[in-house]
Amino acid sequence: MRTADAPPPARSARTLPLRAGGEQERGAGIGFTLLALDGAARRGRLTTAHGSVETPAFMPVGTQATVKAMTPAAVAATGAEIVLANAYHLMLRPGPERIAAIGGIHKFMNWPGALLTDSGGFQVMSLAELRQVTENGVVFKSHLDGSRHELTPERSMAVQEKLGVDIAMALDECVRYPASPEDTRRAMRLTIAWAERARAAFPLLPGRGLFGIVQGGVDRNLRTECARALAAIPFDGFALGGLAVGEGHELMIQVVAHTTPLLPAEKPRYLMGVGKPEDIVAAVAAGIDMFDCVLPTRSGRTHQAFTRQGEINVRNARHADDPRPLDPDCACPTCQGHSRAYLHHLAKSEEMLGAMLLTWHNVHYYQELMRGLREAIVAGKLDDFRAAFAERRAQGDIPPLN
Amino acid sequence: MRTADAPPPARSARTLPLRAGGEQERGAGIGFTLLALDGAARRGRLTTAHGSVETPAFMPVGTQATVKAMTPAAVAATGAEIVLANAYHLMLRPGPERIAAIGGIHKFMNWPGALLTDSGGFQVMSLAELRQVTENGVVFKSHLDGSRHELTPERSMAVQEKLGVDIAMALDECVRYPASPEDTRRAMRLTIAWAERARAAFPLLPGRGLFGIVQGGVDRNLRTECARALAAIPFDGFALGGLAVGEGHELMIQVVAHTTPLLPAEKPRYLMGVGKPEDIVAAVAAGIDMFDCVLPTRSGRTHQAFTRQGEINVRNARHADDPRPLDPDCACPTCQGHSRAYLHHLAKSEEMLGAMLLTWHNVHYYQELMRGLREAIVAGKLDDFRAAFAERRAQGDIPPLN
Repeated sequence: MRTADAPPPARSARTLPLRAGGEQERGAGIGFTLLALDGAARRGRLTTAHGSVETPAFMPVGTQATVKAMTPAAVAATGAEIVLANAYHLMLRPGPERIAAIGGIHKFMNWPGALLTDSGGFQVMSLAELRQVTENGVVFKSHLDGSRHELTPERSMAVQEKLGVDIAMALDECVRYPASPEDTRRAMRLTIAWAERARAAFPLLPGRGLFGIVQGGVDRNLRTECARALAAIPFDGFALGGLAVGEGHELMIQVVAHTTPLLPAEKPRYLMGVGKPEDIVAAVAAGIDMFDCVLPTRSGRTHQAFTRQGEINVRNARHADDPRPLDPDCACPTCQGHSRAYLHHLAKSEEMLGAMLLTWHNVHYYQELMRGLREAIVAGKLDDFRAAFAERRAQGDIPPLN
Repeated sequence: MRTADAPPPARSARTLPLRAGGEQERGAGIGFTLLALDGAARRGRLTTAHGSVETPAFMPVGTQATVKAMTPAAVAATGAEIVLANAYHLMLRPGPERIAAIGGIHKFMNWPGALLTDSGGFQVMSLAELRQVTENGVVFKSHLDGSRHELTPERSMAVQEKLGVDIAMALDECVRYPASPEDTRRAMRLTIAWAERARAAFPLLPGRGLFGIVQGGVDRNLRTECARALAAIPFDGFALGGLAVGEGHELMIQVVAHTTPLLPAEKPRYLMGVGKPEDIVAAVAAGIDMFDCVLPTRSGRTHQAFTRQGEINVRNARHADDPRPLDPDCACPTCQGHSRAYLHHLAKSEEMLGAMLLTWHNVHYYQELMRGLREAIVAGKLDDFRAAFAERRAQGDIPPLN
């Protein structure tokens, strides 16, 4: 567990580990070391300006520079080594200059670990009004106050650089699902052009990296074209974007399994916005190293808890008198100290502590899932892990007490 | 700081310290030891079934069995040794039987320290609809669902006993302020009659105590009559109720200073629902040992922070770029890890972490204030403390940068 008392991370290029990729001479970027393989699944380690990250890794989402309802110390206590924030939101409020003046996003939010920001492409698509996409970039109105903004690949890089993130994402164009083949192809090719501009604009700094984002919808040919084009650009890692947008688990995993072999094996791979525990397990088996999703945190604010035996809603009356924890096998503070009956009471009473305790439990559950996956890969037993995981999830919640 | 790992409290009457009062032979009730005096101010120690409490003490309010926006570990980390909950709320939801079945309120809310419940008298007055007061008790409709309930002195004792609290409060009748002399007198005399019934109904248990509540509005003669009548009943402590309801600081302190000498010196005195830092300091000087108030927690949810130099609202634009903590002299985790600029951002973004961090800071501020008062009494320097406290509070917030 990280604490605020940890020594400052090494900033000298010489102290960085050798990168698995071919750009060690540059002395810049993040490190990635593959430690073990099990089929297509990979066990690795990222090295950033703010510590290392064991992969496969799940990044809790801290959109507005806070993982909702959790203190940074609680996030670290779950085992999370990297969190995600959103350049779109922070660009609009409080503004990257303000965060830079405070000393960067790590100091701003008191998070000493690694941090990745999304570029804003997805948020412009999903949140902003009146967006206009041109070759140059995207013009949109803020969802906060209607003010007009322009986001270009270069502006997105400048914002993320000012924030001082460990991993920046290239600006991409996301299309809604379903989209026509023409729209999907056009957006994918624009994403490639923007990726080249992003790489040129983002500085080479030790411990700081830039990922490109593969688009192309659910069309394998478009995914192939995009992955090959991006693989030729010296990114520090590659993300799969435009998935988990409504296409369903099977199709998503098919696209993932199709795309990962097209990406450089020595670079980390990040499946954006995914997902349910089942999605993560299948995507790890298909060669993904990094994930983010609002599910554990958002569910925590809607009374939903993840357990090894499936999801439960603590508002359900069956929990009102249940003295047992959410998950008898869970070591999180919520399960160690609080009964379902108490969590039910907090939910019915709309007390903030209910959201706090459920969020902590859910993020802990996700980190525990990732620990299990990492151990299984090292042991060469990912298939066994997947079978046991699926069997237990299918059991459903523990039976009620009489 | 208490932790959940602390050994279970001693339950045997023999292991309880001798009580300052005259009922040691009973082997029941809570202990209270006077350690030092400074004028009318008292430095003492309560001994309960769930640990000791250094006085003067401030009890954070956990109305619904949760100190809003704080984990029990965070509450304990501020130095709080006793919290307050409300029998009225818990009687209506989740019900005392449910809490008893879980193992009592301490286990229910995972709070290992001492706990006091208000009897419900004040809440029936302020929250319930269609209340009807008779000699027997009060009939009212629940503010939650309109269901009809009756609260008698005996029922209130049964509820608090089922909850398993360390300190129960006798049922009183509160009148609104201002009230006519006739209404105030009638309610005060009913409160005395109910106090006798409460004492008869509440069991004698080691480490568990019952306090009577002095009523009588701002009429000194009525306060005298009530205090003398209650002092003749073997309570474990005495509260002053019906204050901080609109009468103002000066009048409140006058009534307090008038009443405390009428109460047994060897028993703890609790000023209910008080208050602002200035109120607490003045009331300690007038001989009060215990306080509770929603101010630190409620303020934390409305962007207000207490500092040694007065209150501030972090939503104010002057904090947007301020890298300094709320209070440069504060050792709480909020001030140790987070700038005003970040707290301002959380407030503007309506992020839950803002309420969490401000509440933690405010409860820490109140506990620090009580530590200062306790040390000043022991040193015989309460007057100096009061002067320095008033001077610094009058300074106002630290000047803006630039």
